Amino acid sequence: AERNKVIQQGPPNSGPYASDPQRSPVLKVNTQTPFNAETPSVLLAENFATPNDIFYVRNHLPVPRVNPESYRLEVKGEGVKTPLSLSLEDLKTEFPRHTVTATIQCAGNRRVELNRVKPVRGIPWTGGAIGTAEWSGARLRDVLLHAGVREDKIEHVHLEGLDNNPLTGERYGGSIPASKALSPSGDCLLAYEMNGVDIPPDHGYPVRAIVPGVVGARNVKWLASVVASKDEYSGFWQKNDYKGFSPSTDWNNVDFSTAPAIQELPVTSFITSPADESILTESSGETSEVTLRGIAWSGGGRGVVRVDVSADGGSSWHTAEIIAGADQPYNRAWAWVLWETSVPLPESREGRVELVCKAVDRSYNVQPESTGPIWNLRGCLSNAWHRIHVHIPKQ
Amino acid sequence: AERNKVIQQGPPNSGPYASDPQRSPVLKVNTQTPFNAETPSVLLAENFATPNDIFYVRNHLPVPRVNPESYRLEVKGEGVKTPLSLSLEDLKTEFPRHTVTATIQCAGNRRVELNRVKPVRGIPWTGGAIGTAEWSGARLRDVLLHAGVREDKIEHVHLEGLDNNPLTGERYGGSIPASKALSPSGDCLLAYEMNGVDIPPDHGYPVRAIVPGVVGARNVKWLASVVASKDEYSGFWQKNDYKGFSPSTDWNNVDFSTAPAIQELPVTSFITSPADESILTESSGETSEVTLRGIAWSGGGRGVVRVDVSADGGSSWHTAEIIAGADQPYNRAWAWVLWETSVPLPESREGRVELVCKAVDRSYNVQPESTGPIWNLRGCLSNAWHRIHVHIPKQ
Ligand SMILES: [Mo]
Ligand SMILES: [Mo]
Repeated sequence: AERNKVIQQGPPNSGPYASDPQRSPVLKVNTQTPFNAETPSVLLAENFATPNDIFYVRNHLPVPRVNPESYRLEVKGEGVKTPLSLSLEDLKTEFPRHTVTATIQCAGNRRVELNRVKPVRGIPWTGGAIGTAEWSGARLRDVLLHAGVREDKIEHVHLEGLDNNPLTGERYGGSIPASKALSPSGDCLLAYEMNGVDIPPDHGYPVRAIVPGVVGARNVKWLASVVASKDEYSGFWQKNDYKGFSPSTDWNNVDFSTAPAIQELPVTSFITSPADESILTESSGETSEVTLRGIAWSGGGRGVVRVDVSADGGSSWHTAEIIAGADQPYNRAWAWVLWETSVPLPESREGRVELVCKAVDRSYNVQPESTGPIWNLRGCLSNAWHRIHVHIPKQ
Repeated sequence: AERNKVIQQGPPNSGPYASDPQRSPVLKVNTQTPFNAETPSVLLAENFATPNDIFYVRNHLPVPRVNPESYRLEVKGEGVKTPLSLSLEDLKTEFPRHTVTATIQCAGNRRVELNRVKPVRGIPWTGGAIGTAEWSGARLRDVLLHAGVREDKIEHVHLEGLDNNPLTGERYGGSIPASKALSPSGDCLLAYEMNGVDIPPDHGYPVRAIVPGVVGARNVKWLASVVASKDEYSGFWQKNDYKGFSPSTDWNNVDFSTAPAIQELPVTSFITSPADESILTESSGETSEVTLRGIAWSGGGRGVVRVDVSADGGSSWHTAEIIAGADQPYNRAWAWVLWETSVPLPESREGRVELVCKAVDRSYNVQPESTGPIWNLRGCLSNAWHRIHVHIPKQ
């Protein structure tokens, strides 16, 4: 009977998504098939390395279930005389193991804030499509050089996944600049571990690309092939998605060929607690203050050098304390920082107070003040000052 | 007699600045001793490579007059067993000649815009403390490696000039991260030519450092020594100047040790024509439009991917055409772009219309909307949207 119908929380019983894994009920689900879910933002700053089970999941297609015994990574393309076909064991034993702590963020994180300006297309991520993990694997550079690839002969490295469209067979893929893939300081990995364990199915088991400082979309999961090329990858997600446009570009006049594919992401920050629209308990003392905590990150290895918080609309700013991640190498600061500060509430406060944060990165780039001027039809790159509201009971 | 007294335009007749060179009368002078003068902004976008005689001059001290025969560049420090003492001829003949087209910008360019928010300390640069030249010289990397420097043993490379304080003898100097100095893709030069001729006295004759994508202050002129070190340079301009702070930091509470020295600069753009407060002639046709031209640049080799212009306060944006500099390598786009676009004037326009531009760089970082939130006591890093006004006669 209708009354007994239950809405399924896990993967469906049949169809292409039936072999998707079980997930933590803590994740905030945005779409079930493909599975797209974010870390509740209040949990983001609770750990420097996000626990695997609550790390955001951004799947474009069904999760491929890979047999580690038969898995092979193909390495081929420009300059590669004999293509490599590497087993998981080959990757683990023939190349030095390298570990990188890197933050990954979805291009569409904080998309909901752009949606409030004018509708955009895409998954309505709030602020939790970002996470940090310790990744271990072979260096992409080592594997490419071993295969015979030379930086002066190529421009791009294609990364293609085993995930594919059940109807067409088309695989998910993307590419990164050859200079990033091959740079000794680029720290790109063919990773087989996430926070010290095998990479979970949702995050690319058995091997995924880690491209530190670069948008999540190029950190290709369930990696099938690495291809050295003179040309950029020609797939949909590289050429006709994940690009930025002016606020005056709409679906009638957009020309995807006019903008470059997103690689490094811009500086961002987010207040993780208190939660938006929290009701605070006012202290009985003379001064009232609120303690804020959050995250901040920038692409390209540009570390966050300062986070400012205001409780009075930007008239006065309080520089937050960086409580984790402050000490990362120059322009290789791949991981976020966690920050905390206490801010006095304005004396003339009303019942509802706006709290804002903004970060500055190592190149002294700053976040834009508001979302209108960075609005774009696809809802990517939403990095304006983060604003929340708290309610203070009348005394 | 008093009436015959003439205000001197060139260098003084006596004192430490008496041997400063003659300069073009086209430069807009901000201080005579030391000499600080900018390119009139209306000329900035007239050439991709700024002519040497109108390239902005930022001197901290008197111009040293150097005999090219006796000139020596000292190369020493951590890992250097036998310090090098290179003549100008040595630099030209013992190392491959390398050419880089790079934009240099003063940390305080556009400081006047911050001064309108609240007074700041520093030279009141308008928008012309930026310029682009083709620089030729030896690679800094080649010289350091030749001297025995190893990247894994040092963190910083000091660059010290021959210019010095006449009272104390203290030299101008600064340092850059070792990774930048030694990277094959960092393109740092010990330059001896500017736009195909000997570097002029005001720009560092006979040798200056070119550190592409990095603030002018580290592109040390009249270079005396290059020192490999574990430590950052300890001089005033590295430790107690050229840093960014929050708008709530003032001269009573500033602690220069809490902020990192500016290296890469953030994304910026500037309308070079029409000039601010220009009076336009309205056409007699149905639609009126105004043609804007300008420059845009970002630090760290991040090329400019888009410049947007608005004539209606940001309600609608027109993406400008990049007329020069569009085709530069990924993350080695050291030079600015020149742009141009025609924008319809709003129908409901008043006599005075605001025109604004904003740029986006390859990491999709954007310029902040306004100057208040980036105000800082020293008036550096002024990269908000550029705003000018034009006057349209009543019909
Ligand atoms: Mo994404
Ligand atoms: Mo400067």
